[in-house]
Amino acid sequence: MTPSRELTITSPANPRLKALLALRRRRTREETGQTVVEGYEELALALEADVRPRTLFVCEELFSPAGRAGSQDIGHQSDLLARVRETGVEVVHLSRGAYEKVAYREGADGLLALVDQVGMPLSSLPVDRPDFLGLLAQGVEKPGNLGAMLRTADAVRVDAVVAADPVTDWGNPNVVRASKGTVFALPVASATTDAVLAWAGANDVDLVVTTPETDRLHTEVDYTRRVAVVVGSEKHGVDERMLEAAAHRVRIPMRGKANSLNVSVSAAIVLYEAVRQRATR
Amino acid sequence: MTPSRELTITSPANPRLKALLALRRRRTREETGQTVVEGYEELALALEADVRPRTLFVCEELFSPAGRAGSQDIGHQSDLLARVRETGVEVVHLSRGAYEKVAYREGADGLLALVDQVGMPLSSLPVDRPDFLGLLAQGVEKPGNLGAMLRTADAVRVDAVVAADPVTDWGNPNVVRASKGTVFALPVASATTDAVLAWAGANDVDLVVTTPETDRLHTEVDYTRRVAVVVGSEKHGVDERMLEAAAHRVRIPMRGKANSLNVSVSAAIVLYEAVRQRATR
Repeated sequence: MTPSRELTITSPANPRLKALLALRRRRTREETGQTVVEGYEELALALEADVRPRTLFVCEELFSPAGRAGSQDIGHQSDLLARVRETGVEVVHLSRGAYEKVAYREGADGLLALVDQVGMPLSSLPVDRPDFLGLLAQGVEKPGNLGAMLRTADAVRVDAVVAADPVTDWGNPNVVRASKGTVFALPVASATTDAVLAWAGANDVDLVVTTPETDRLHTEVDYTRRVAVVVGSEKHGVDERMLEAAAHRVRIPMRGKANSLNVSVSAAIVLYEAVRQRATR
Repeated sequence: MTPSRELTITSPANPRLKALLALRRRRTREETGQTVVEGYEELALALEADVRPRTLFVCEELFSPAGRAGSQDIGHQSDLLARVRETGVEVVHLSRGAYEKVAYREGADGLLALVDQVGMPLSSLPVDRPDFLGLLAQGVEKPGNLGAMLRTADAVRVDAVVAADPVTDWGNPNVVRASKGTVFALPVASATTDAVLAWAGANDVDLVVTTPETDRLHTEVDYTRRVAVVVGSEKHGVDERMLEAAAHRVRIPMRGKANSLNVSVSAAIVLYEAVRQRATR
């Protein structure tokens, strides 16, 4: 550990903190190729997934009394700090005032890292598994929905999560947060709908597209083939191109007044049906 | 229609608008027994569920060009206005400036109603059906999660949704919104955990409690009995009392890094398993 790799910032007006704040804008994330991970739980998962922070910002004063954050007893904030230090990553100590300027969640726990933007090109997704299972989200807007879908994708171990024509980037800090860090543990990509359809076609992936415009139930399709489950945007669902490219159009049975489910709920119901079929085949 | 039932407000400082704004606070909702429904889709569902607004606030300038809001072609804003007018409900016309002061969603569509608070006592829930199916949420905090759960509860036609020790009231405008108005179409109640457990015991409802602390999968339980699916808070899950009162503790299989699902996703996976079993029994 060289001394030059540790420094302390106490002024909230410090330019490096301004640069961190600027990463709340998608455009800055795209221009710099960087984003921010905040919180012990998310950062621990990122490290586990071999993400190497460019810089770790810490405010030890905010480390919780028990030395751990969240409900999962998977380590301690100071242990994490020690581990990151060992890898030679730059550590910047922040005063409470400085930290609170850059933290944007309530109950900040004193850990925040600058990391490379999340995602890989479509061509790098691991699509060669014979029982490939993917999740494809077209035009989904809300970070909370994308995050919830990533947690489900992690839980059922999908091989790839693809955003087609995304409104929100995978590195959006609210996506990272809502995903509990699983965005780092998954192969994720973004591309235009046309590029995604070309990729699916070239790789022999059947698209199972959720839409109200069919009589076929989601339980009536074979998910033991190479498939990707497709969900559409909160407002408009999937578009015509997706419907036309579908190997199967399916709907989830709904008998209520409103006739629509939250998009992350829809994705989960279909993915767990796939899991059920694959476990029992 | 008497002339006294229609008036126009153009000043954003009008006291009635201030009273509407105050309903964003839970305490004011509880004190006044009132809440706010915003948006065509939500309001249409509330009317369909026989909710009678105390006052309808409209800004016709914001009615969309096609005369409809959202993707569901289930009617028109001006039709809705006409229908409400016929029932003798007070209609208040707002200038755009006045409307935008009280609207709190982006893309406001010019319809906002003052209604009675949502919910009924536990004792009024329809628990006498032989195949009763309930959803019980303990300590859930996020309006978006409660709203998503209500949409699922509506889709699978649960007989009752109960919040135990709720952090958020059912009439929270963000719950109403995230629920797409389904909160009005469902029997919902709130009570302390002790009261909820007493109610379940007295009514012979088996609690199927989701928790990571069991080896039993959610698919290994019989949901064709009188059951309520129980999910816990985002941070802590269900508490000890709920675990002890459980007829069955179940977990959803998770094979990922993070080992937790979004709470509304968990509720949906278990409820759709119940639906699947009930359809095939």
